[in-house]
Amino acid sequence: MAQRPTGVKKSEARSSPVRFRHKHLLAIADLDRFEVESLLDRAEAFAELSEKKVKKLDTLRGRTLINLFFENSTRTQSSFELAGKRMGADVVNMSVKSSSVAKGETLIDTAATLNAMRPDLLVVRHGSSGAVELLSRKVDCAVVNAGDGKHEHPTQALLDAFTIRDRLGNIEGLTIAICGDVLHSRVARSNVALLNILGARVRLVGPPTLMPIGADRWGAEVFHNMRDGLKDADVVMMLRVQRERMTGGFFPSAREFFWFYGLDEEKLKFAKPGALVMHPGPMNRGVEIDSTVADNPNVSLIETQVRMGVAVRMAVLEALAESGANEEAR
Amino acid sequence: MAQRPTGVKKSEARSSPVRFRHKHLLAIADLDRFEVESLLDRAEAFAELSEKKVKKLDTLRGRTLINLFFENSTRTQSSFELAGKRMGADVVNMSVKSSSVAKGETLIDTAATLNAMRPDLLVVRHGSSGAVELLSRKVDCAVVNAGDGKHEHPTQALLDAFTIRDRLGNIEGLTIAICGDVLHSRVARSNVALLNILGARVRLVGPPTLMPIGADRWGAEVFHNMRDGLKDADVVMMLRVQRERMTGGFFPSAREFFWFYGLDEEKLKFAKPGALVMHPGPMNRGVEIDSTVADNPNVSLIETQVRMGVAVRMAVLEALAESGANEEAR
Amino acid sequence: MAQRPTGVKKSEARSSPVRFRHKHLLAIADLDRFEVESLLDRAEAFAELSEKKVKKLDTLRGRTLINLFFENSTRTQSSFELAGKRMGADVVNMSVKSSSVAKGETLIDTAATLNAMRPDLLVVRHGSSGAVELLSRKVDCAVVNAGDGKHEHPTQALLDAFTIRDRLGNIEGLTIAICGDVLHSRVARSNVALLNILGARVRLVGPPTLMPIGADRWGAEVFHNMRDGLKDADVVMMLRVQRERMTGGFFPSAREFFWFYGLDEEKLKFAKPGALVMHPGPMNRGVEIDSTVADNPNVSLIETQVRMGVAVRMAVLEALAESGANEEAR
Repeated sequence: MAQRPTGVKKSEARSSPVRFRHKHLLAIADLDRFEVESLLDRAEAFAELSEKKVKKLDTLRGRTLINLFFENSTRTQSSFELAGKRMGADVVNMSVKSSSVAKGETLIDTAATLNAMRPDLLVVRHGSSGAVELLSRKVDCAVVNAGDGKHEHPTQALLDAFTIRDRLGNIEGLTIAICGDVLHSRVARSNVALLNILGARVRLVGPPTLMPIGADRWGAEVFHNMRDGLKDADVVMMLRVQRERMTGGFFPSAREFFWFYGLDEEKLKFAKPGALVMHPGPMNRGVEIDSTVADNPNVSLIETQVRMGVAVRMAVLEALAESGANEEAR
Repeated sequence: MAQRPTGVKKSEARSSPVRFRHKHLLAIADLDRFEVESLLDRAEAFAELSEKKVKKLDTLRGRTLINLFFENSTRTQSSFELAGKRMGADVVNMSVKSSSVAKGETLIDTAATLNAMRPDLLVVRHGSSGAVELLSRKVDCAVVNAGDGKHEHPTQALLDAFTIRDRLGNIEGLTIAICGDVLHSRVARSNVALLNILGARVRLVGPPTLMPIGADRWGAEVFHNMRDGLKDADVVMMLRVQRERMTGGFFPSAREFFWFYGLDEEKLKFAKPGALVMHPGPMNRGVEIDSTVADNPNVSLIETQVRMGVAVRMAVLEALAESGANEEAR
Repeated sequence: MAQRPTGVKKSEARSSPVRFRHKHLLAIADLDRFEVESLLDRAEAFAELSEKKVKKLDTLRGRTLINLFFENSTRTQSSFELAGKRMGADVVNMSVKSSSVAKGETLIDTAATLNAMRPDLLVVRHGSSGAVELLSRKVDCAVVNAGDGKHEHPTQALLDAFTIRDRLGNIEGLTIAICGDVLHSRVARSNVALLNILGARVRLVGPPTLMPIGADRWGAEVFHNMRDGLKDADVVMMLRVQRERMTGGFFPSAREFFWFYGLDEEKLKFAKPGALVMHPGPMNRGVEIDSTVADNPNVSLIETQVRMGVAVRMAVLEALAESGANEEAR
């Protein structure tokens, strides 16, 4: 994990696009600390441009981005679509749920078909862990994992880190508690990996039934109650709970889940005074988070997360396009 | 209700974009007569450009328009999409029916999420009256109501007025009969409001079960039979009837509805000779309108309405973008 | 059927857009040999540009392409969308399955509505044979048939011919076997017509239940077994089989179909040594084609077909736009 090289000022890093060592962004492990920090610097520059109403860039003009979503996600898909369009790319959305997959086409045939259309960037969301990685091996273009099963969702972790850095200046040394349904959460996996790279102390908090076996070896401390898990936390990240999992198998009811793990003003007091609250959305109000916390602008970073999402994805798309364009030269 | 200021020629009004006093276009009541007439002048300029095959403008380059449709409407959504793209905007379509709403997200959370993506224009269609207004209070950008429940559909009324003015030169003093299922029609509500602003005499014609209580206080005369309602009418606007409402609750059958209220050549004779026929589409042929009338190019303005839709929406989007851009300066 | 005029070199033909004699591309019969060859030359130029990463052209800037799909087809729709966007057009996708058609609108009303929006190009896929032709009579713009029922799919045949020419240099005199479910295949119909124009010897191979009556009068020789049908064939084109047709009515089971007609290495030996394999996709592996053949890069042209699809559609869209723009001048 490299530090930013001495002598490179933040403003200089910002002025040029990032280049990744790897061709794809499939998991946080594809990145080192220097790449992450350069990327967040670059995202900062894009976020500033956007606030100045300079929204349209020509960086990706003539490039084609295919948004390939095997699962519905208006939020993530729109975020990538906006990021691509703001950089001048041609964006083509493909919802494959109802289409060729229904006709019995294999994932690898879908990959070959897309590849033959010569896109430059492929953003993929898939319900099965590992599907995006498999697909990436069959195409020539750069692939971004926009969420695969319970595995990873690296741009979500990057935007979360960007949001924290934007508010608190630095991530190194912070204590960050990730709470709720860790078992089914790709957001949790990507966040633990990224926050470790950036030097945070990470905790996972949730009921034993929703905590993966071996989570204590991910680089995080595991807790089963909010009082201990939130102690001295600078940031509390709540995870989305699928309501359909609250029917006995994992937890008796949504009401009991809220009682023990739902973040309200009382439980937030367990954390450090002034602790910040995050959620990847969409929220289940009254299940994993209470409206008094979610809507309190002094503690909630939830809207900022969405805003940062577009800027971070612009930086990621640019970095992958740059890396691809310079492939032969390297 | 201001008149166009004396000394401002039509061609001058046309040469510059309109500015609205209000930030959003949620209902016809947001507009005064001067704004409406300037807008129709501007739409006329866009319609002329379009016929000259000058279709692409740069007015909205770098601006983002989100088309947020909670109800399906290929027709209205495409019309706004085309209007946005012809002005150079980046257009992102979101069909929210099957997505985050299904995941239990509230309308206000959806609004906050979209707002955080920093669009410039938000076009919203929703099944519940008032939902678009609620959403508009939670976002920073300009919002256009593209139809909310049984409440309003202001751009439809504007394109209807534009179509009439284009054909008859003026709206002041005309007698316009709006016929059919007034109870469930947002098109009727917006049209009554707009035609009153423009000085027309408005009538509502329909069975008592499909006429809202108090419709006579909207600024329209209420009739329950076509013979009296169409007498001396210059324009007959038919409303779309939902077939599923023809099953006893509101009316015995589609066949009886057609017999009493469906517009055919016979009933059209009740109106002024040369009276024109309009319909917002999609039509139920043989229910509220007969093909002999709908397809007669001498009386039917139905295709013109669709064509005018794109031009009117271009003018509306431009006006809202302009108003937003100059917000601080005012 | 005209030959390319003497004295016109290939490179010259390439340097300028093609013009069609007909306004629409509804069926292969709309084209003559000169138009086809010019189109393939032009597609070759686009394919070369694309490989050089010159992907964005301004040829169709300011033009609007509507992709109107009454049937799902991610593959074909994306191919036209990419082709349109790479030439600078504004592309609007309409999936009409769930929308206005569900509201009871007739095909002709849909056509009138679209026409009123003043698109320049309309790409239509419909489940009923002849629907696209009907629609084309009701609109002012150029229409491309992207597949109508069991009738035609002309751009698929063009990309197939382009793929063969790209690999073998010439089509005249080749023996090409089209195999499988000919009865339900619009791809087969368009290919027989086009390959006849280009001077190939065409064969249709399939079980009697899946061979249309009168197929022997299409300009192809009919065979009911693969051994005879593939003898001396330069190219073997497999057709997609709908699995739901393998349940007794047309054939006992997918397994028996594969046994008699599925292309594997054994059956491919019936063809000329070095024969090439094609499939319009999506494939049913293990039904009409075996993976050992489909994935063998020495014989399979399946990925090339998809790649050629975008270039061919660019050439078609350009030709139709050109023809329209010069309509009055002719």
